[in-house]
Amino acid sequence: MRKLVNENRIFRDLEELKKITDTQGKGVTRFSYSESDKKARAYLLKEAKAFGLKAETDKIGNMFIKLPENSKKEVIMTGSHIDSVREGGYLDGSLGVICGLEVLRRVREKDLNLKKTIWLVVFVEEEGSNFNATITGSKFLTGEYGEEDLDILKNKDGATLRRILKENNYPEFNSEELKPDFNNIKAMIELHIEQGPVLDRKGISLGIVENINGMKVHEITVTGLSNHAGASPMTGRKDALVFSSECVLKTKEIIERDGKGSEVATVGHLEVSPNMSNVIPGRVKFTLEVRGPEAERINSLSEMILSEYRLLAERENMEIDIEKVAFSKPYRMDKSIVTALEETAKKQKEPYLLMNSGAVHDTGSMSSYIPSAMIFVPSIDGRSHVSTEETKKEDIIKGANLLMETLLSLAD
Amino acid sequence: MRKLVNENRIFRDLEELKKITDTQGKGVTRFSYSESDKKARAYLLKEAKAFGLKAETDKIGNMFIKLPENSKKEVIMTGSHIDSVREGGYLDGSLGVICGLEVLRRVREKDLNLKKTIWLVVFVEEEGSNFNATITGSKFLTGEYGEEDLDILKNKDGATLRRILKENNYPEFNSEELKPDFNNIKAMIELHIEQGPVLDRKGISLGIVENINGMKVHEITVTGLSNHAGASPMTGRKDALVFSSECVLKTKEIIERDGKGSEVATVGHLEVSPNMSNVIPGRVKFTLEVRGPEAERINSLSEMILSEYRLLAERENMEIDIEKVAFSKPYRMDKSIVTALEETAKKQKEPYLLMNSGAVHDTGSMSSYIPSAMIFVPSIDGRSHVSTEETKKEDIIKGANLLMETLLSLAD
Repeated sequence: MRKLVNENRIFRDLEELKKITDTQGKGVTRFSYSESDKKARAYLLKEAKAFGLKAETDKIGNMFIKLPENSKKEVIMTGSHIDSVREGGYLDGSLGVICGLEVLRRVREKDLNLKKTIWLVVFVEEEGSNFNATITGSKFLTGEYGEEDLDILKNKDGATLRRILKENNYPEFNSEELKPDFNNIKAMIELHIEQGPVLDRKGISLGIVENINGMKVHEITVTGLSNHAGASPMTGRKDALVFSSECVLKTKEIIERDGKGSEVATVGHLEVSPNMSNVIPGRVKFTLEVRGPEAERINSLSEMILSEYRLLAERENMEIDIEKVAFSKPYRMDKSIVTALEETAKKQKEPYLLMNSGAVHDTGSMSSYIPSAMIFVPSIDGRSHVSTEETKKEDIIKGANLLMETLLSLAD
Repeated sequence: MRKLVNENRIFRDLEELKKITDTQGKGVTRFSYSESDKKARAYLLKEAKAFGLKAETDKIGNMFIKLPENSKKEVIMTGSHIDSVREGGYLDGSLGVICGLEVLRRVREKDLNLKKTIWLVVFVEEEGSNFNATITGSKFLTGEYGEEDLDILKNKDGATLRRILKENNYPEFNSEELKPDFNNIKAMIELHIEQGPVLDRKGISLGIVENINGMKVHEITVTGLSNHAGASPMTGRKDALVFSSECVLKTKEIIERDGKGSEVATVGHLEVSPNMSNVIPGRVKFTLEVRGPEAERINSLSEMILSEYRLLAERENMEIDIEKVAFSKPYRMDKSIVTALEETAKKQKEPYLLMNSGAVHDTGSMSSYIPSAMIFVPSIDGRSHVSTEETKKEDIIKGANLLMETLLSLAD
């Protein structure tokens, strides 16, 4: 007999979590450590309790929901997050958590006897909404973040993570206690919405992730000469916006010429100064973000683009300053877990796409310690991080069933 | 005997006015109707009184300083303004006012008997710092603004000009009383800094202005598709910033190819939304400002550039919305006044450049009613509207003497 999820319970839970937001009517705003976050956790705990599941929260806020059985058993893990960006969507993160919870509920109500046990992890502060640093919870789990980061991570009001934990009555931090016994965790699978348009465009309901792309972000400051726009002839101008526009177009040109299909480069942030219609822009700041599945290629593509900026600057006698502001390495998913997902999908007679994740996920940092992979379901029109983020119900069910059957087969 | 200005008095006055600012140490901030403005006016009145000059302020705040003589005499006018932009320079406006005052002082202390009389006008609210609308004072003088504009012009706190006048104890507005008898005013000459780099680059101390450029400003809104920068492949993106960058470069290309040297086009304001390094820009707003000495050419160049934007939008399937936000017509200076200035310069053996003004000035709106022209002195490096705005002392003296001798010859 195949064990499949209870769809109605999943949609009900997603709807209930959707309501728990700081911005009613304007998408989901639920930052970690906020009142909304506490309410969402309480909802999960209530459900867990109703099914006799155990729940623990670690010293940083990662929550683990477990089957009530022999703690010596090997572990198969699933999970995602329930925090959101400002005015984001209701599926990002929550989908993986609710479907993971559903698997545990199913195991309990069918009274399945598994060789390994299953844990659901709810990572804290995935989005970086508080501290402008993503996948915070998993980085503490793996030790990539340590105690010193409690004082480095600050929200926009200047409150450190240490202070926030204290104000929320967390016990004293202990990095050793945080680390799970990674040797005992045999697999990690996260179900997530794609957040991009690939599956939706191809009309395929399931993606199996082979790589999580890494990224490198630089901030470029261009200094030209600000002057009265009316009184300065075109000749001899040093217009920082004209220069930056060339950089934006060069970026696109280079990534389209030299990048592989899985690599992208984006100028997402650009700020003009003094930004008045009648003044020649004297300074522009913009970001260059390069993403791809291979660290070396991310570096070389970034360098290729930045070299072109420098060349342009020399030719046009502009001053540019380039600063690296962020790097997150790419992660390779585990072949055996990917294969397990493929086999389940084939058994379910569901077409799937082997693909990369453009966005970063906690499963990335976990994958350095645990054989890991991810399942993607399509985002309609690729929309994510917006209130109109949506996935077809039938695709959600397919994703949940692929997660459930694969977890059960790995736990068997 | 040649009558020349008293240089020391000019430099002293400029230094004194420079001190009257709301932003000590950060350039001159002196908006019309502010306390600084009142102090600066008091300074001028004290000087006027010391030389037995008469002063009148009209119902909108334009100040007239006059020789104490037969009011039936025909008038030669000079003047400029003492209001400033935020953290602007100390010469913009003040130079023409102080040098005009110096001419009147000279006439008084040399007891010159002139056939015509000379008025110094201090235009109110030239910069548009309060109401975001330039040359307000002269527009009321010429009737281009009427009583209804007292309620339309509002500062950033929402206070109307009518309310501001009332709070400053101005008498009730009467547009008829405001209008000078233009038939009786035979000439208007304004001395001003160039605010651009042309004279400075050529190393010429004097500019005689033949045209004041007009301008047309459009605001363009580009709507693309905002999406996760990591999860969206390059193919199929609708990046509003990439598109806008093409527009910025096309603007430069077209104005350099089809514009005459006196015509300029600038994208000075550009705003990206949502403006995050990891999100593809979904919307960009930017301004296109085209300036030149001929209205028809300003219109046709604007249309040429905007057509190219529309063409690009069609080709790249982007949505653009174009809105006209401002127009100010170009003004032709009076040939006879230009000739009078040229003859004086020649007599003074001073090289000069016949040129256009890229910036708008009150003398523009006056020129529709009074034969008018302007004198420019160089702005070092073209700097203006900044605290480092500067002009060589020797150039200031040359400008002041050209103003004085021409006014006296016209009044003779």
